[in-house]
Amino acid sequence: MVPVVSIVGKKNSGKTKLIEGVVSELKRRGYAVGTIKHSVHHDIQLKNVDSEGTDTYRHYSAGADTVVLAGKQMLALFKRIEKPKTIDQIRMAYLSGLDIILTEGFKQEDKPKIEIVRTEVDEELLCSRSEDNLVAIVSDKKFELDIPCFELNDYAKVSDFLEKEFIKEDKAKEIGLVVDHKEIPLKGFIGGLIKEAILGMINSLHGIPENPQNIEIKIRR
Amino acid sequence: MVPVVSIVGKKNSGKTKLIEGVVSELKRRGYAVGTIKHSVHHDIQLKNVDSEGTDTYRHYSAGADTVVLAGKQMLALFKRIEKPKTIDQIRMAYLSGLDIILTEGFKQEDKPKIEIVRTEVDEELLCSRSEDNLVAIVSDKKFELDIPCFELNDYAKVSDFLEKEFIKEDKAKEIGLVVDHKEIPLKGFIGGLIKEAILGMINSLHGIPENPQNIEIKIRR
Repeated sequence: MVPVVSIVGKKNSGKTKLIEGVVSELKRRGYAVGTIKHSVHHDIQLKNVDSEGTDTYRHYSAGADTVVLAGKQMLALFKRIEKPKTIDQIRMAYLSGLDIILTEGFKQEDKPKIEIVRTEVDEELLCSRSEDNLVAIVSDKKFELDIPCFELNDYAKVSDFLEKEFIKEDKAKEIGLVVDHKEIPLKGFIGGLIKEAILGMINSLHGIPENPQNIEIKIRR
Repeated sequence: MVPVVSIVGKKNSGKTKLIEGVVSELKRRGYAVGTIKHSVHHDIQLKNVDSEGTDTYRHYSAGADTVVLAGKQMLALFKRIEKPKTIDQIRMAYLSGLDIILTEGFKQEDKPKIEIVRTEVDEELLCSRSEDNLVAIVSDKKFELDIPCFELNDYAKVSDFLEKEFIKEDKAKEIGLVVDHKEIPLKGFIGGLIKEAILGMINSLHGIPENPQNIEIKIRR
């Protein structure tokens, strides 16, 4: 699973700007980065997306559950949902093959969080150190806490932190198992055993390349 | 894998209208339907999607590879791509859990095709019966071919055809295997064997429900 860090903070604290800065720095360092923006207030303006006479919008309005607009340089997907998705649901379904995912918002979830505090807007933390899985602060003020506190525009230091604490350590995970939409942790030995058993089974199948790199299996009962 | 049928036809032949009609009819019948629109000419107008000050657009412009906007009733995803994706790539990555996928366009691919011919626009077929995997025609004109020919607005008949020929027959497939982004066909016995072996291996793991319905395994080497 791709590691996730949530960027949280009060309204107008500069969350989007921080994400822009960090994404841009992580891209410069060669990482594949995903972002998730939590949209609570408004709904999504699909009508304006498709310049070709809003065909995509028409497919969606006719009732399609999922609509994909496949362009030359971008793929856009719109999926009807009945209730808001969790980060894990989004990550499992759509965000593989990345080095890290940054979310804007999602304070209620249990993911590690970096809070941005800009004193011009508010001087207090939104998160509690113990209850919200707060791992760092970005602020123009100093906090007396046992977690790193970075300056507002120091995207390099924030990126160093993400690289050291989140990106690198996940590289070892080579097998992921999801059952009924819930991730089942596979510790080292068992994970290795299942991986080797599956590779052994599929190795002799017709059409399998010499040294397969990515294997995906889906079972529906 | 979810079955795919491509709706093709000349410009202004009414492809989008046909898809609207059929999607709406299939939804009425209780199916989960996806669509893919092939956008060749224009690129996608991301800037207009996100009403919250275009935060999503800012994430994307900063270089994020994938940006997700998670709303209450819709999830939107924007993914940077280096070359156009094939239907199979899109289907594998994003379109599981559906009963059928209709594409608008993608004539060049080998998927089964329904061509719409509206004589007001053009009287000739775009597809050749033998070379383009043409399985049906929708038209205000009669064609002497050994495939069904439906009237322009007869969405019920087109839906009957899709239901009978594509939706039902796929239900039996219970295990899918994808290696290095290519689908490996698993015939009955081998598929059953691998499925049972995997279920046997994971059954005793901590956290596995009594009777798991969906199992997904990803291996990266």
